Amino acid sequence: MKIAIVFGGISFEHEISIVSSIAMKDVLKNELVYLFLDSSRELYHIPTDVIKSKLFSSGEYKKFDKVYLQKGGFYKKGGLLSKNKAIDYDLVLSLMHGGDGEDGIFSSVLDFYGIPFIAPRTEACVVSSNKFLTKGYASSVDVKTVDYKYYTKGETVEVNEFPVILKPVKLGSSIGVSIVKSQEELEYALDVAYEFDNAIIIEPFIPGVKEYNLAGTRINGEFKFSIIEEPQKAEFLDFDKKYLDFSRTSKAMEVDLGAELNAKVKESFKRIYNNLFEGSIIRCDFFVIDNEVYLNEINSIPGSMANYLFEDFNSLFTDLAKNLPRKKHIPITYEYVNKIHASKGK
Amino acid sequence: MKIAIVFGGISFEHEISIVSSIAMKDVLKNELVYLFLDSSRELYHIPTDVIKSKLFSSGEYKKFDKVYLQKGGFYKKGGLLSKNKAIDYDLVLSLMHGGDGEDGIFSSVLDFYGIPFIAPRTEACVVSSNKFLTKGYASSVDVKTVDYKYYTKGETVEVNEFPVILKPVKLGSSIGVSIVKSQEELEYALDVAYEFDNAIIIEPFIPGVKEYNLAGTRINGEFKFSIIEEPQKAEFLDFDKKYLDFSRTSKAMEVDLGAELNAKVKESFKRIYNNLFEGSIIRCDFFVIDNEVYLNEINSIPGSMANYLFEDFNSLFTDLAKNLPRKKHIPITYEYVNKIHASKGK
Repeated sequence: MKIAIVFGGISFEHEISIVSSIAMKDVLKNELVYLFLDSSRELYHIPTDVIKSKLFSSGEYKKFDKVYLQKGGFYKKGGLLSKNKAIDYDLVLSLMHGGDGEDGIFSSVLDFYGIPFIAPRTEACVVSSNKFLTKGYASSVDVKTVDYKYYTKGETVEVNEFPVILKPVKLGSSIGVSIVKSQEELEYALDVAYEFDNAIIIEPFIPGVKEYNLAGTRINGEFKFSIIEEPQKAEFLDFDKKYLDFSRTSKAMEVDLGAELNAKVKESFKRIYNNLFEGSIIRCDFFVIDNEVYLNEINSIPGSMANYLFEDFNSLFTDLAKNLPRKKHIPITYEYVNKIHASKGK
Repeated sequence: MKIAIVFGGISFEHEISIVSSIAMKDVLKNELVYLFLDSSRELYHIPTDVIKSKLFSSGEYKKFDKVYLQKGGFYKKGGLLSKNKAIDYDLVLSLMHGGDGEDGIFSSVLDFYGIPFIAPRTEACVVSSNKFLTKGYASSVDVKTVDYKYYTKGETVEVNEFPVILKPVKLGSSIGVSIVKSQEELEYALDVAYEFDNAIIIEPFIPGVKEYNLAGTRINGEFKFSIIEEPQKAEFLDFDKKYLDFSRTSKAMEVDLGAELNAKVKESFKRIYNNLFEGSIIRCDFFVIDNEVYLNEINSIPGSMANYLFEDFNSLFTDLAKNLPRKKHIPITYEYVNKIHASKGK
């Protein structure tokens, strides 16, 4: 099976996408094709044997072939008298973090051109990439989240009890996130967050809260789970640490939660995965407070790369690739237009 | 200003899109360019002077020029020795109802290619086109909705009190919607709804509930509202009636709600519009129960066509067109990749 990895994109997490895509060479045993979306939304085909992160920071990638999207796939322009050349692949793994990827833009584009892919579909991207919408969604499927307040730029922010954690609504990888311990620190934290987004949420910061990560997918109606990991963390993982984490390929240690809590975490994952995340591998980050499970975040695109949580990620990935969800067939019959014409006698 | 209307799409509401797009000829005073997306996702440029619904049902549209998306716009293929020809327009009005349009797919595609457009952006499409996500979103912005239960195909449905209204989660225009008065009617209504979607919501049906529609937009931070209309309805508007409604161009009658309720309805609209719907004109359909305002639905794409609710729709539209939201600039600096290379000494 030949996997086309699309990575890069206009995103604050552009560089993370590069690093985690290159890491896939050590994880997936399938043949890989690398398609890079640069900061002006041009696509390039980067040969797998020469790929390295420096190609992108130096601009050297521009010497490789440009690629265009067309119905059914990716093409390179032919010469004056030759046809456009289709790039050979079986399916796409969309690995753009943040903008262009997790926000649903590229899933929509793939869907529009009828290209099969592993990644959350548009709706699932939107729900998981926006912390505000994630909260609403979680409550609809009866999964608890930590209380929060939502603010948009310019609104007066009132915090009664510190510490709080302040997050831009849309970014991942802890970008723009601050822990705020006092009124004095608040204004600076707001400035930082609004650098990246025009809306934020503020939650109480719970020092020492237990966090557990679980990745999984559903293949032919059956859930496939990773181990549950208790991630190592400083106060919280900042961008630099998370960044390095994305190139992580060594296996994680399983945490023993006991049967009851283990079942609760998995049940919460199932509720979140629901129908919405079909076609993707996601990682859910949960908090456990007083033996109750709270959803912290859904990692949709990096979820595909939570390979270190799985015993045999390559098999899981290949199994999912062979069982991607199909879109419902929508018949277009012109029944109503014909009816109107008939009644008008035209 | 030259407006390119994109319509059609793979959708149960494909035909509604055709009818409402043609109706725009009577509504907008701008020069119009018609781009039709057919059921196999090929785009065609239909000359404005010959457009009529029969062209599409007969398949005659295929004799017109094919159009391709490329960075920055829409193009027709040039000859062997001539360049591709760009279609001239200032911005796109995306008028695909349901699939491809309201579900965010085409907004993403326009965004991806850097094409300015009037329509909700991807996130807003996803929230408003999914009744389940609309409920969660409304509750996050403190707007009431009627209680509901959410079911996916195969789950046991229990109804304790009839009548209820049963709706596919994703469709508009009342497709697949049934009022269910007894246990005997339930199974048939479920079959109907699951024809169109694999998830449904069930709400209590409130006979004679007052419904009020309000359309609006925000231009440069300022809300512009239509009149509030109490739509005429039978028990509820079924597809045929709503279908005809989309070609409606005559003005609606304003309803007098009194100052207090009028303000409540507008306040609820503002909360829903929030930042999410920037760049679009939406119509919100509210219920009023015991003097409280409940959101029933957000009509995002057809909202652009709620022209009959506005005194001067053309001016509003043109004003919005000149003040579309800009995407935040995202700098891509390769700071982290460079840092890693520096620390590795490579």
